[in-house]
Amino acid sequence: MLPVDLPDAVREALQAPLVDHHCHGVRRDELSRAQFELLITEGSTPAPPGTTHFDTPVGAAIRRWCAPVLDLEPHAPPAVYLARRAELGAGEVNRRLLEAAGIVAFLVDTGLESPELLSAAEMGRHGGAAADEIVRLEQIEQDVSETAHIAVDYMDSLAEELAARAARAVGLKSIVAYRCGLDFDPARPSRGSVIAAANRRLSDPKQRLTDPILLRHLLWTAVDVARERGLPLQFHTGYGDPDLDLDRADPALMTGFIRSLQPIGVPVILLHCYPYHRQAAYLAAVFPHVYVDVGLALTYTAAGSARVMAELLELVPFHKQMFSSDCYGVAETCHLGALYFRHGLARTLRARLDDGEWNPTDCARIAHMIGSGNARRVYRL
Amino acid sequence: MLPVDLPDAVREALQAPLVDHHCHGVRRDELSRAQFELLITEGSTPAPPGTTHFDTPVGAAIRRWCAPVLDLEPHAPPAVYLARRAELGAGEVNRRLLEAAGIVAFLVDTGLESPELLSAAEMGRHGGAAADEIVRLEQIEQDVSETAHIAVDYMDSLAEELAARAARAVGLKSIVAYRCGLDFDPARPSRGSVIAAANRRLSDPKQRLTDPILLRHLLWTAVDVARERGLPLQFHTGYGDPDLDLDRADPALMTGFIRSLQPIGVPVILLHCYPYHRQAAYLAAVFPHVYVDVGLALTYTAAGSARVMAELLELVPFHKQMFSSDCYGVAETCHLGALYFRHGLARTLRARLDDGEWNPTDCARIAHMIGSGNARRVYRL
Amino acid sequence: MLPVDLPDAVREALQAPLVDHHCHGVRRDELSRAQFELLITEGSTPAPPGTTHFDTPVGAAIRRWCAPVLDLEPHAPPAVYLARRAELGAGEVNRRLLEAAGIVAFLVDTGLESPELLSAAEMGRHGGAAADEIVRLEQIEQDVSETAHIAVDYMDSLAEELAARAARAVGLKSIVAYRCGLDFDPARPSRGSVIAAANRRLSDPKQRLTDPILLRHLLWTAVDVARERGLPLQFHTGYGDPDLDLDRADPALMTGFIRSLQPIGVPVILLHCYPYHRQAAYLAAVFPHVYVDVGLALTYTAAGSARVMAELLELVPFHKQMFSSDCYGVAETCHLGALYFRHGLARTLRARLDDGEWNPTDCARIAHMIGSGNARRVYRL
Repeated sequence: MLPVDLPDAVREALQAPLVDHHCHGVRRDELSRAQFELLITEGSTPAPPGTTHFDTPVGAAIRRWCAPVLDLEPHAPPAVYLARRAELGAGEVNRRLLEAAGIVAFLVDTGLESPELLSAAEMGRHGGAAADEIVRLEQIEQDVSETAHIAVDYMDSLAEELAARAARAVGLKSIVAYRCGLDFDPARPSRGSVIAAANRRLSDPKQRLTDPILLRHLLWTAVDVARERGLPLQFHTGYGDPDLDLDRADPALMTGFIRSLQPIGVPVILLHCYPYHRQAAYLAAVFPHVYVDVGLALTYTAAGSARVMAELLELVPFHKQMFSSDCYGVAETCHLGALYFRHGLARTLRARLDDGEWNPTDCARIAHMIGSGNARRVYRL
Repeated sequence: MLPVDLPDAVREALQAPLVDHHCHGVRRDELSRAQFELLITEGSTPAPPGTTHFDTPVGAAIRRWCAPVLDLEPHAPPAVYLARRAELGAGEVNRRLLEAAGIVAFLVDTGLESPELLSAAEMGRHGGAAADEIVRLEQIEQDVSETAHIAVDYMDSLAEELAARAARAVGLKSIVAYRCGLDFDPARPSRGSVIAAANRRLSDPKQRLTDPILLRHLLWTAVDVARERGLPLQFHTGYGDPDLDLDRADPALMTGFIRSLQPIGVPVILLHCYPYHRQAAYLAAVFPHVYVDVGLALTYTAAGSARVMAELLELVPFHKQMFSSDCYGVAETCHLGALYFRHGLARTLRARLDDGEWNPTDCARIAHMIGSGNARRVYRL
Repeated sequence: MLPVDLPDAVREALQAPLVDHHCHGVRRDELSRAQFELLITEGSTPAPPGTTHFDTPVGAAIRRWCAPVLDLEPHAPPAVYLARRAELGAGEVNRRLLEAAGIVAFLVDTGLESPELLSAAEMGRHGGAAADEIVRLEQIEQDVSETAHIAVDYMDSLAEELAARAARAVGLKSIVAYRCGLDFDPARPSRGSVIAAANRRLSDPKQRLTDPILLRHLLWTAVDVARERGLPLQFHTGYGDPDLDLDRADPALMTGFIRSLQPIGVPVILLHCYPYHRQAAYLAAVFPHVYVDVGLALTYTAAGSARVMAELLELVPFHKQMFSSDCYGVAETCHLGALYFRHGLARTLRARLDDGEWNPTDCARIAHMIGSGNARRVYRL
């Protein structure tokens, strides 16, 4: 299954079950080709006329690696693949692909919940794994803003709701990168400024929150909750969908905020990071509370993902890197995330052994740390 | 000719004639060593005393790959190379190198036209290829500003002249990256602000345009023309000459502008991009109307260019990448652009086959798309 | 010793003594494990509970490559390594590791001087090498601000002290990247603004200087001195300790300042640069007075450093790259800096030979230029 030959202990460490510390639910319903294509791109539109989202690295990877899980030959054409998918049905496809991923625990960001998506518990059941929840801050804020009447309510409810949801969760997550960029003012906003901003917000509460003052208030409220409960705080950084201004999602832009969390001791976990994964590795190397993965980036760079993994491994301490699939919508993204994680790490470890740089014992230990040990420690699983 | 062994169909696809969707004319006259050295660097000064611009990746590549085209041994010393070049004469050298590039169509940016440079038609004749024109916006604007008398004239003439030139062209090109950076305000400027800025401009019309309001007006006028005629809009991004502030030439900085062109449907083509080619690939992956190449970067990174190509291929959809040589001044840059494009793509395809990631049929198809198919479709050749 | 087979001339060129054009003193005293761990990270805190700074690329490299220099097996456990280190004593360890580095001249940044660090002369003696001084601007400024009484004194003393120190040095160095970022206004500040800022400064002179006006004044005073004495000006860029905002240490941000030094002719030397080394290579390629290394980055990326070196070599002219170890605190960082420099360059040269891109004569010449020739020329050694 691995693309390179490795000593037994190293191979076993790589094939051991992974903790997927950041993922989403996959669809339970049958999907048309158009629906499926929209779930294998971070774009939000169909491919231009005469083209297909299958003609991408991730599309080719689905044909190569997911087809055999559905009993097809590798490189099956898209139409054949989708016909077989329909034939097996979504339930069976999800079970096969989630199981093939070899995950022992899913930490599910429930911020995108909808009836068509498997819940955290269902993800676990389908994948033969445990499941825990990661609470998405901006989702809580949206709920609160739609029910609060005055600013003080808003602030109180936000703190209460965050605390209540955190009590059942293993981590919190922010998508502030999407809402105002990571170059936000790191300081906790003043109570007065928050009240004024909340009053503006409550006059049109259905809008997606983009006010930097309230976003910073949300973050700092989350920091209080995270500190109290010993939870880490995940941040979307880098590669994502077209709502994002990529240059403002460079995690280095939040260095000031990271610096101010250092004495508080709340772990900061940088997700995805591509193409700023070297910046993320730097932050993980110099700040004791920063952790990093390249979740989404591996799935989408697919056949080219080994280089991304190798670049992250240039600088990141072995006790600071984690695995996530960031799967969403289709279970293919879970299988591919896990597969390319194992393939990429296998290739770097093989190179380290060939160069005489690391010994097999260390390689096995490092694979265990990155694959599950670090996440178990930080999320207290 | 290719650096790796490949299945016949893949090799043939890579060796098939390329559409060079962005290039410039090469010099028709004989060049001194000093002149030649200045045309093989993006710098604008001679190499420091005791050094030579031949001691660069592109300089080494000329000695390696262009020398045999002039009947010399590979790695010929610079003096020998230049003596042979003079002996053959510029016409013969241009014919040999342009033909060796294996180009079927040159799309020539005519914005740098001068009597010493081959015209688009001559590029085609020398290279045994078709030739079409890409209109450089800032050149049109310069002509208009030198002839218009009042702001309204300026605006009308600009629209008319752009429309007239576009009628004979296959695309438009902007070098706004050089003039104010890609972090310009994406909104169309108000008529009032354009009139005020045009009046300032017309008081000193020979200056190079750097006013962001007029540059944005120029872009939006070009968008109108491009939409009407179904033309794509090229943008210089990334690596260029020292007039540029490289950090402001990151294509991710123009995400807002790209977003506002999405409903209009005008294709945006990001040129060069290095070292921001991963950002460019991201934009091509999430926006349906964005295309990308790494033209200039391959020639100048030369022996190291396979990694640049591989990094672009990590994320870019196969139907979104194109080839350009961005040749300028000396025909060596055309031959090397095409050669390193083929070499780099060959190496990545070889790796995909070795890893079992893509099959030969797909590899051949991808090589055709990137080498010519995508350009034919987008430029309607 | 090299990781790849090479023609004799190339191997000899790589093994020839290096000019280490940027380094610091190493500790003369015996170190506890806690002290040692803090000297093998750019972070400023112990590794989190249950983890160790040995579980990093540089930590693994110490066990692999420095252990044998202390007569241990490769991959010795940290405790064994540190016990042997204590057994031999700091003096012997320093002599062995500095000698193993194969350095012919150390250019020592003396801005961090303290009694526990070897002086420049001692570094030379321990390493069997010559030693010269690089003057750190911000250190001079700190001394001056603590003794000057009024603004005019401050300005005069600064110019005098810089000139006096420069008279005994081979170069100057700025850490403005740490103090206000490289996106500073490139213009020389007005005398009036400097006097006003100096008066503010003198009211609290023990503070670390962060005022952009005084930092710019310091730089421009240094430019005057450097021009007069023909000295180059080094800049910390990229990777460093957590005081830094990494995104503001991208050398491309100082393009305006670089541009304004071009007519003055003072060489600008960009240190470290990671992960912006491609931007640095671009600057070295288009500006005649810009030079570059990836000193610190090679030590810390260790087993992954060959890729960093390869990326720098994509674009940098052969007469523009230098070697530095940036060693500090422990002599291990000197040995590893030199080792990974030679390993990385060896791998790229091997690849160029395998690909038929460069010939052995050129490879040997390039190795000599980068390893020592360029530094000898620019620092006039």
